[in-house]
Amino acid sequence: MIALNHTHDVDASSWVAAANAAGTDFPIQNLPYAVFRRTGSPQPFRGGVAIGDQVLDMAALSARQLLDGLALDAARAAALPALNDFFTLGGAAWRALRHAVFALLRDDAPAATMHAVRECLVPQAEVEYTVPARIGDYTDFYTSIDHALNISRLMNPEGDVTPNFRWIPTAYHGRVSTIGISGQRFHRPMGQTMAPGAEAPTYHACARLDYELELGIWIGEGNAAGEAIPLEHAEEHVFGICLLNDWSARDIQFWEMAPLGPFLAKNFATTISPWIVTMEALAPYREAWTRPANEPQPLAYLEGSANRESGAIDIRLEVWLESEKARSEGSGPSRLSRTSFRHQYWSVAQMVAHHTVGGCSLNPGDLFGSGTISGPGPGEAGAIIELARAAQDPVTLANGEQRGFLEDGDAVLLRGWCEKPGHARIGFGESRGMVLPAKG
Amino acid sequence: MIALNHTHDVDASSWVAAANAAGTDFPIQNLPYAVFRRTGSPQPFRGGVAIGDQVLDMAALSARQLLDGLALDAARAAALPALNDFFTLGGAAWRALRHAVFALLRDDAPAATMHAVRECLVPQAEVEYTVPARIGDYTDFYTSIDHALNISRLMNPEGDVTPNFRWIPTAYHGRVSTIGISGQRFHRPMGQTMAPGAEAPTYHACARLDYELELGIWIGEGNAAGEAIPLEHAEEHVFGICLLNDWSARDIQFWEMAPLGPFLAKNFATTISPWIVTMEALAPYREAWTRPANEPQPLAYLEGSANRESGAIDIRLEVWLESEKARSEGSGPSRLSRTSFRHQYWSVAQMVAHHTVGGCSLNPGDLFGSGTISGPGPGEAGAIIELARAAQDPVTLANGEQRGFLEDGDAVLLRGWCEKPGHARIGFGESRGMVLPAKG
Repeated sequence: MIALNHTHDVDASSWVAAANAAGTDFPIQNLPYAVFRRTGSPQPFRGGVAIGDQVLDMAALSARQLLDGLALDAARAAALPALNDFFTLGGAAWRALRHAVFALLRDDAPAATMHAVRECLVPQAEVEYTVPARIGDYTDFYTSIDHALNISRLMNPEGDVTPNFRWIPTAYHGRVSTIGISGQRFHRPMGQTMAPGAEAPTYHACARLDYELELGIWIGEGNAAGEAIPLEHAEEHVFGICLLNDWSARDIQFWEMAPLGPFLAKNFATTISPWIVTMEALAPYREAWTRPANEPQPLAYLEGSANRESGAIDIRLEVWLESEKARSEGSGPSRLSRTSFRHQYWSVAQMVAHHTVGGCSLNPGDLFGSGTISGPGPGEAGAIIELARAAQDPVTLANGEQRGFLEDGDAVLLRGWCEKPGHARIGFGESRGMVLPAKG
Repeated sequence: MIALNHTHDVDASSWVAAANAAGTDFPIQNLPYAVFRRTGSPQPFRGGVAIGDQVLDMAALSARQLLDGLALDAARAAALPALNDFFTLGGAAWRALRHAVFALLRDDAPAATMHAVRECLVPQAEVEYTVPARIGDYTDFYTSIDHALNISRLMNPEGDVTPNFRWIPTAYHGRVSTIGISGQRFHRPMGQTMAPGAEAPTYHACARLDYELELGIWIGEGNAAGEAIPLEHAEEHVFGICLLNDWSARDIQFWEMAPLGPFLAKNFATTISPWIVTMEALAPYREAWTRPANEPQPLAYLEGSANRESGAIDIRLEVWLESEKARSEGSGPSRLSRTSFRHQYWSVAQMVAHHTVGGCSLNPGDLFGSGTISGPGPGEAGAIIELARAAQDPVTLANGEQRGFLEDGDAVLLRGWCEKPGHARIGFGESRGMVLPAKG
């Protein structure tokens, strides 16, 4: 089991009042990282830690006499416009800074400390965020069997996943250049599609635009090319987790993807949330990773006792859609689905071990997408193609509008949090992205 | 047609004697770029231009009073440890520096100029190279119909390409972190494969290791997200071309690739040549891009008169294999195949236009692989799986050894050049990579 410590104590509270409010995403037990600056400011972006409704500015903090040793080294690295150097420092440094920041923000901090730290706080309402690291490579996994089955059964009600799904944490390389931070707006993509029975494809705006509810997994320490990361050490290489929306053009995807996989169907936009919740903050919400006895058990390089004991994470997730009409009416977004990351067929550790088993190197700041997260129950699907059964059974929004796929002006919001009796509720903030009309 | 100018003049010669030798890859009409330093030196890597057996050091050159205006700006950018800033400057700057360097190296340069420039030369025998730009994203295309047909017909002698091949310049995103410069050595990858008829996969060292003869296409100027690059402007965004070996683990690929494409089968290593031959140097070797009348003609966004007139490039290519035994005997490498890039089904401009048509942004320093380059004739296949028909018909090397797939200790060499009556012969140098035993 992953060891808990005083930073997970449900009774800890902060002198930042909003951090103690019921339902906040950012209590003192969370302390996630983002890269931010005051909105519209010419100042460089810098790392910060969320506490309540504030951001603790790592550049300001590391310039004061409040930290020393490894925690100071870590804060200086986290003060840069990209977190890669901080990621490179590794787990001991990440923990040192977490524990130091926890002590500074806890309600028993000395008054002089509180006074000094308060000067390093910026209201979240006054900041803008950017992609928190230089992403070297982005890999998108495909690890929800419920998602894979839902897609398969759209074609064939008796359909199953491909034969390799139960053996391989399937993945493909994705596009870095179009990964944007929450607030991203993008034009509906143009592309080729082939109508059933047609002799030639046609070129037009995507007519089957979808989102995919995923988590983004940030690689902290890397590995050298040729040096596989064994399963039992895999999580030491993971810094933390954010929300990720893998926008998908289903009609373009359907025509282009055989034999080499999705390309233009995915590479026009991917939206991530600014806040990265650390693996240490997620420790209380770990669960056993299980594989039913009637399913194949993993090959040895994907098998280990720590993974069995705590490989799953109960991250609660929701997808909301706000149409242009709902926005203008002020009627608010509609919830499309809710599920948990605990249902994934493959764990984060298995993703890392598989990715490197052939010798592929990971670098600090690499990003994994978990793959669409769909749960087993009704209303737990992570993409609208599943919920609305490829537009055969449109989803009805709170204001009565219907959706088979996404329409122009639709904003999709992802939300995530962890909660568990005896532990704090910690949240991921939000990933929001919006569809603009095609430019074609 | 692409306009030629005096830098393409076959009669031009250089005061660097080796640049005028028959068969050199680097006459004054070529002037390709690499990033280099003296072997083992602590000096930073910097850009250089090949001339005969020398490298013209852009850092040294730009520090002297030999350039001005745009050419000086360009040389200063090309002096950095990565060529991204130089790429960003765009075509006018690239041309200005080419023309200035041509004048400095031409045999009619003033004696004082020759003396000053000579101090900026470093023998190629005394340098080491690195990957010449920070690669933001790497995209691997699949644009040789002869390669696609050869692979298809291994399964079914009547086989055809997938229905989308004739309509789409097919591509998928590849791995940046394991792209290495010529001289790269890598361990044979471990991975999962599924034997025919087996109930479960097994984990072992790749038994079907292959190379793929490709060209690497370097993106110069990028485009903003959402702004497609029209076909007629596509080549303005391309800086130049190098050799690229897309090492492939066929047994791992066969098992993993449905439905999302190749992943571990490709991401353990990709080897590129250090020298980037500019699109301007390639101008004399352009040819008409044609599509036989019995084949589908491209959709409008992939169709244009300039592409029809000169979209193809006659780059002659060869693959050589040097086994460990041949190396120890000193018997030298064996040529496995020869072909030309002129046979590709889709042109470079079509790759750029297709890649961006859905709004995907390209950045300076992005790299495309052309996809395996196989020609229509016997002995023109760009991968050993085609030449040896999946080991059914092994290739015999010059020393009598046979190869169905690659063995440990095998080095694969790619070579490329252009030649045409009335024009100089210009070359790409070499891409060399070597297979080490599995670490598993």
